[in-house]
Amino acid sequence: MTRYRAVIEYDGTNYFGFQRQIKAQQTIQGELEKALFNLAQASIQVIGAGRTDAGVHARGQVIAFDFANWKHGTERLQSALNGTLPRDIAVRDMQVATDEFHPRFDATRRGYRYTVWNRPNPSPLNQRYSWHIRQSLDLNAMNIAAKHLIGEHDFRTFGTPPNGNNSVRRIFHAEWQRNDDFLLFDIIGTAFLKRMVRSIVGSLRLVGIGTWSIDDFVTALQAAERSRAGQSAPACGLVLEFVKYSEQ
Amino acid sequence: MTRYRAVIEYDGTNYFGFQRQIKAQQTIQGELEKALFNLAQASIQVIGAGRTDAGVHARGQVIAFDFANWKHGTERLQSALNGTLPRDIAVRDMQVATDEFHPRFDATRRGYRYTVWNRPNPSPLNQRYSWHIRQSLDLNAMNIAAKHLIGEHDFRTFGTPPNGNNSVRRIFHAEWQRNDDFLLFDIIGTAFLKRMVRSIVGSLRLVGIGTWSIDDFVTALQAAERSRAGQSAPACGLVLEFVKYSEQ
Repeated sequence: MTRYRAVIEYDGTNYFGFQRQIKAQQTIQGELEKALFNLAQASIQVIGAGRTDAGVHARGQVIAFDFANWKHGTERLQSALNGTLPRDIAVRDMQVATDEFHPRFDATRRGYRYTVWNRPNPSPLNQRYSWHIRQSLDLNAMNIAAKHLIGEHDFRTFGTPPNGNNSVRRIFHAEWQRNDDFLLFDIIGTAFLKRMVRSIVGSLRLVGIGTWSIDDFVTALQAAERSRAGQSAPACGLVLEFVKYSEQ
Repeated sequence: MTRYRAVIEYDGTNYFGFQRQIKAQQTIQGELEKALFNLAQASIQVIGAGRTDAGVHARGQVIAFDFANWKHGTERLQSALNGTLPRDIAVRDMQVATDEFHPRFDATRRGYRYTVWNRPNPSPLNQRYSWHIRQSLDLNAMNIAAKHLIGEHDFRTFGTPPNGNNSVRRIFHAEWQRNDDFLLFDIIGTAFLKRMVRSIVGSLRLVGIGTWSIDDFVTALQAAERSRAGQSAPACGLVLEFVKYSEQ
């Protein structure tokens, strides 16, 4: 039995998120397990580093799985999987891991990017991977507000912890930058609550259009109440860019 | 009666090309005419600068149409259209044109970009707008071959002229560049035959992987026989970037 670790890229548009569902809905985990079943002729469970929501994309999701007796090396396992997976999911990298490796518990940092298309007119060639915000945005105010996210906070305003667990997370980096007609929001933290990045982006938009002051944003964060957040940004703009581990 | 001229962006994935079909197939022209009918409550014919094929995208298609009595200015006509059009088609710019303006006959230059994703592994987040070529490519040889396209030539090898018409076209620029894992092919000419850019890209790939020498490419071009071209590159990698007019 060998444990493998792989980096996965996917277009989440047509999936109900990463995690396998009880109902017969298409998920990334489900497709990966189907592809592995085809190769192994046995059920193989896939564990992911982050449970991305329905419609969220990934360029650097990390998974692990155990494969009993693959004899052709990691490179051929990777191409065999890529030959079997649907076109919107692919393995970017594959390695043999230690038997103890756990992609979720061992992860030390996760990085997400949220993309906004910030023009009066929609952009058909960018709408699949961005949120269209027509109004002009005060990027400076959004960045001052975002700075308040950095450090260790109870992020309950912006997301729900699993089963009432701890909602304290540590954020290392949270910053907007303009790139032509795009606004890019990069956020790096130990881990994220369900919906957290999209809820933060939706709230920072309120700062950007002037509905909220920077103080309003900080007060909402400090309240640690889910009802205080602005409306979540749509899933299509969000990409899980990377997951890092302590040995890296 | 006022003639308008507009710049259109579209994701061509779900369309049978720009031009309205006899069969009930979705086309860009058809959707634009539907949206105009909704505003005018009368049939309005749309003329495009280039008849992009099924699946081909555009960032800078130019169209013209006559609208009898729109009283609210070009900006509101543009937003009204964008509010009516499907999400994968949008008006980027709109102006009042002279009564004689014809987007196809008056165009002096058209620019296309073809995008290749050049890595051993597929990229789900890029597959919608690029062609995945696994093999490493000799970009230098491809560029030497591409240089032979520049100037006035009979391009019958790479495309079909409408109804046996003249197949001579003038190319001003044809060049590949590498951008990380992408190869970008920019080509600018007076006009293009049906399938011409994709047929050129497919043939240049043969040079890039070594199946064809540069001489093979030049001989194929000079033969002016459709059967001499390499297999056409897929539509998804191609974008009509701009159309230019002499007064610009």
